[in-house]
Amino acid sequence: MIVVMKAGAAKKDRDEVLKRIKELGYKPHVIHGAIRDVIGAIGDERGKLVLQSLESMHGVESVVPILQPYKLASSEIQKETSQVKISDQVVVGGPQVIVMAGPCSVESEEQILESARQVKASGAHVLRGGAFKPRTSPYSFQGLEEEGLKLLAKARTETGLPVVTEVINPETVELVASYADILQIGARNAQNFALLKKVGQCGRPVLLKRGMAMTIQEFLMSAEYIMSEGNHGVILCERGIRTFETATRNTLDLSAIPVLKSKTHLPVVIDPSHGTGNYHYVAPMCYAAVAAGADGLIVEVHPDPEHATSDGAQSLKPKKFDAMMAKLRLFAEAADRTL
Amino acid sequence: MIVVMKAGAAKKDRDEVLKRIKELGYKPHVIHGAIRDVIGAIGDERGKLVLQSLESMHGVESVVPILQPYKLASSEIQKETSQVKISDQVVVGGPQVIVMAGPCSVESEEQILESARQVKASGAHVLRGGAFKPRTSPYSFQGLEEEGLKLLAKARTETGLPVVTEVINPETVELVASYADILQIGARNAQNFALLKKVGQCGRPVLLKRGMAMTIQEFLMSAEYIMSEGNHGVILCERGIRTFETATRNTLDLSAIPVLKSKTHLPVVIDPSHGTGNYHYVAPMCYAAVAAGADGLIVEVHPDPEHATSDGAQSLKPKKFDAMMAKLRLFAEAADRTL
Amino acid sequence: MIVVMKAGAAKKDRDEVLKRIKELGYKPHVIHGAIRDVIGAIGDERGKLVLQSLESMHGVESVVPILQPYKLASSEIQKETSQVKISDQVVVGGPQVIVMAGPCSVESEEQILESARQVKASGAHVLRGGAFKPRTSPYSFQGLEEEGLKLLAKARTETGLPVVTEVINPETVELVASYADILQIGARNAQNFALLKKVGQCGRPVLLKRGMAMTIQEFLMSAEYIMSEGNHGVILCERGIRTFETATRNTLDLSAIPVLKSKTHLPVVIDPSHGTGNYHYVAPMCYAAVAAGADGLIVEVHPDPEHATSDGAQSLKPKKFDAMMAKLRLFAEAADRTL
Amino acid sequence: MIVVMKAGAAKKDRDEVLKRIKELGYKPHVIHGAIRDVIGAIGDERGKLVLQSLESMHGVESVVPILQPYKLASSEIQKETSQVKISDQVVVGGPQVIVMAGPCSVESEEQILESARQVKASGAHVLRGGAFKPRTSPYSFQGLEEEGLKLLAKARTETGLPVVTEVINPETVELVASYADILQIGARNAQNFALLKKVGQCGRPVLLKRGMAMTIQEFLMSAEYIMSEGNHGVILCERGIRTFETATRNTLDLSAIPVLKSKTHLPVVIDPSHGTGNYHYVAPMCYAAVAAGADGLIVEVHPDPEHATSDGAQSLKPKKFDAMMAKLRLFAEAADRTL
Repeated sequence: MIVVMKAGAAKKDRDEVLKRIKELGYKPHVIHGAIRDVIGAIGDERGKLVLQSLESMHGVESVVPILQPYKLASSEIQKETSQVKISDQVVVGGPQVIVMAGPCSVESEEQILESARQVKASGAHVLRGGAFKPRTSPYSFQGLEEEGLKLLAKARTETGLPVVTEVINPETVELVASYADILQIGARNAQNFALLKKVGQCGRPVLLKRGMAMTIQEFLMSAEYIMSEGNHGVILCERGIRTFETATRNTLDLSAIPVLKSKTHLPVVIDPSHGTGNYHYVAPMCYAAVAAGADGLIVEVHPDPEHATSDGAQSLKPKKFDAMMAKLRLFAEAADRTL
Repeated sequence: MIVVMKAGAAKKDRDEVLKRIKELGYKPHVIHGAIRDVIGAIGDERGKLVLQSLESMHGVESVVPILQPYKLASSEIQKETSQVKISDQVVVGGPQVIVMAGPCSVESEEQILESARQVKASGAHVLRGGAFKPRTSPYSFQGLEEEGLKLLAKARTETGLPVVTEVINPETVELVASYADILQIGARNAQNFALLKKVGQCGRPVLLKRGMAMTIQEFLMSAEYIMSEGNHGVILCERGIRTFETATRNTLDLSAIPVLKSKTHLPVVIDPSHGTGNYHYVAPMCYAAVAAGADGLIVEVHPDPEHATSDGAQSLKPKKFDAMMAKLRLFAEAADRTL
Repeated sequence: MIVVMKAGAAKKDRDEVLKRIKELGYKPHVIHGAIRDVIGAIGDERGKLVLQSLESMHGVESVVPILQPYKLASSEIQKETSQVKISDQVVVGGPQVIVMAGPCSVESEEQILESARQVKASGAHVLRGGAFKPRTSPYSFQGLEEEGLKLLAKARTETGLPVVTEVINPETVELVASYADILQIGARNAQNFALLKKVGQCGRPVLLKRGMAMTIQEFLMSAEYIMSEGNHGVILCERGIRTFETATRNTLDLSAIPVLKSKTHLPVVIDPSHGTGNYHYVAPMCYAAVAAGADGLIVEVHPDPEHATSDGAQSLKPKKFDAMMAKLRLFAEAADRTL
Repeated sequence: MIVVMKAGAAKKDRDEVLKRIKELGYKPHVIHGAIRDVIGAIGDERGKLVLQSLESMHGVESVVPILQPYKLASSEIQKETSQVKISDQVVVGGPQVIVMAGPCSVESEEQILESARQVKASGAHVLRGGAFKPRTSPYSFQGLEEEGLKLLAKARTETGLPVVTEVINPETVELVASYADILQIGARNAQNFALLKKVGQCGRPVLLKRGMAMTIQEFLMSAEYIMSEGNHGVILCERGIRTFETATRNTLDLSAIPVLKSKTHLPVVIDPSHGTGNYHYVAPMCYAAVAAGADGLIVEVHPDPEHATSDGAQSLKPKKFDAMMAKLRLFAEAADRTL
């Protein structure tokens, strides 16, 4: 941590800062600058955000953190990508690009079974589908809940595809975990710390979506919440951030892939469906994600998007998904990956 | 809802859209334009987001919603500001500007009692203090939890100030409600729908903070979640949105005051402490908020900010808070309010 | 400047960095940290952005600037607000809040004279009106150009109000300066450095608008451009920044007022018309701006907004402007200012 | 254009709107809705932004544009991508992915010749290099100006590579055009309409960069400015937009590729150097851009980045650029393009 003093700060103020740094367990080190002094606080500052409070001391201009505040998620702990095992066939973070596909919501037995068969036939590895739906409006369809979980389990039995589904409440984490292979934390719950702790205490792998206004650092801190409770099976998912641009539903931040690859060992999956909000843009963003080094994709596919209860506009029809997968294979090869 | 067809869309496509609009319970009405057709879907569209799915139909360019999707929160239902009664003396949304003040976190009996006495002496109406803290880092102080709630209750007994404190988990809503006069929903939980529903089933007034990347419309939809469960005592709180600017912690959106006043009857409170993240900027933003028509303020005040466990940099010392309150009185009068 | 080395960076890499820091004219100072070294580069770093290039050196994690890069605009040079004299009666940055008002575009003699008379009658101090219009579309009305300047001069002669008008091209700076009392640089030209230099070489006061995606620091660097050419009569104008929110045309950043007041001595004016884009929200934002410490306002007023060639939706009718000014007086008094 | 009336708007207000719509040359068409009326204004609304002024009329809730306001740039005019010919060998928008590479600034004869040789050897098609530099600080290196242009011309003579260089002032457009093969408009000048008009009157192809806070629609309107002056050789360049994320210098919006491909016939080039600001992230973003369908790349390459006068941190060394180009070939093939 670097404490920047104001130009012309009094010696008395500097001494108070030095004293406070020592009290907090750091060793202070003053650099006398041309215009102002800066003070280095030596010691491992991770987990000690309290240093920021020095900003309220007299004579202090600002406090600049030097270390990233995460430990378990950091690439300093482990260079190679963590492999999160979903089933005997499916590992996220290995040489194979993992594709998760299926409808936004589970709507009926026929709809989810049909979806599962189709995405499997096109080469998807995991079935996605929402049973508990976090909807902006209280008047929108909120999901089939446990009935939806049962239908997902049925689709898994029939196709062999593991399933990923969202959990939105600490009270239902165990219920969802009893059916799902991967627990999804949605963008709106990415800093729902009570929920993060609860899935951290659970054995299931977690697909953690980035919040709409979440910095990369905060994203990793949310992963750290899950990991610090003992669950290291965290898969990060970039799904678009909120910006001024309205031509797309969100702005898909593909540069998050190399940034995350440099800062963490956790695998990275991209969601181009929510990222763009428009099925026309999904395939190019799938190709781009794999070219940029993504470990996987999560894509909305619906057999009948215009009758979907949610997110129809961004869902691929099975035929378009199939064409996308065929072409994706070429990009995976160019990226030295399998599909 | 207006469905905009593509230039040169086939008649067959248009007929499919008309058919689908009827299926969904609307009456379609075609306008033949110079370049393309647009189709109005007549009927109350609130609670029917499903129309958006028409965007995936052949020949459709875009779907433009016309009505705001909230009902209970809308100013179309009630023109005058709702008055949310906190205690016999304190009503949010009436002629008096209500000031809530206190430390970010409850840290000790001495700290919270001292804070309560000081803010009361300066004219604050409600004591704030966090017992359950949603912290970005799992390694940061997470709050005194129930012990903190007890200390808040003690401070209320001593000073007579009602207390507002945050609730972060559906599982502890009842516990917090048994101590607090106002339940706060924090910015990170502003779309934690499980939590919103739970506080909606509870009798206590709710201070709902705007999420960091939340549009005004989404903000009102979150209020609608609470109201649709039966709890109409919702106070909206603007606390800064996330933008590219880093000179302040967030960008305090004061134009949200007149915008909300035109769209909803719910009272509006401003949090300049989180909004700016710097105690130097708090007082001017308090004055501005009241001048713009805010019904209240929530301000961080700490007797010893440099030793605070959280948010020291944005907390006012009691003496500065006192000076701010004295000057605020003038702005309240200019705005035809009392303080 | 602080150079943060990577954890475990080789001594060789560190030595290269030390060498390069010396080459660039700074004195390096190493702090050996618990996890990594940081190196302070001592010396006045203003105007030496080149240090950022050290980020490309082996073993370097990041480079953190310490000093603000502006000099002439900085409050470290002068504590009290600079007074920019417009005429014998009008000074921006003094005890009086200066109100600039008038239509977006000069459209006709009748329209501008009528506007000038009305805003003067309500107490405005400066007449605004655009003759050269920077329009998003090449097909929109581009302004009356020199004819518009002449009409502004005529309105000045009749009413005695000084005029502020926009300049959009280095080639016409002298022409505009021959008619105008204040040269306005619009948001879209806020980093048009050729134009900034040219108005910096001109004697006229400049109203510099903040760009839509401009940080406070960049805003002050643009002021520095003008000042470094010799023109110190710079008035800063916050006019809303671009964010994800669409309920307002831009997000008016009123916290920029106290932030600028702490970082610069230049006076600060607020434009609530462009800031909100909706005449309903203009008056509350005027009150808030003055309460927060603004030195002036610039407000769009049009005698017939629904027939305006530009920005009708955000223009006040003279009657509404008059009512606003009456109430503004109360807020100016509460802020210890005159109007 | 759709005019949405307020719920319960008076018939008189509606009649006024109908009258005004007719005055403006449109045919009004009323739809009586369940809650409110909406009025369609039939007629080609492109170039008639003035309709927005109806928002200031009594009883009007909002005005919703239906058509995109650009014509010449629109894909409705031409489906296939326009081919912009730079030289006999180089065409942007054809089957070949065009790579423009070189240093941020031209610094010396040796530096630019060395850069040109190296990037040519690696397969680049165009040499980039800045002679007039738009720098945030007036104290930063502003470029070698005409001397720099001469050095670029020399490098072209030696290597045969056409050159792209920035123009920042209408007064020097002709000078720059007399040396350069492509005129670059930088992000900060993307809405400098005086400059856009001037390059529009010039015969040279233009590389138009997207502004930092520019929507896709505004981006195309800036292209329209150039085209409406007669110059149809416009190449669009996405170079990152400004968002809250600070891990990268900007957020590179790769979804702009498919969005632009659906809305315009102009070719699209990506700048991953400014888009990320960090040379580590450049190669993955190059691969991703080509996978997403980009027609070209513009990449900063410097023989000695740590001594660069600008943007060293984001420049690739020639060896890294060479490795990137080798791998890029695979992605170009997967995308059915040549390199």
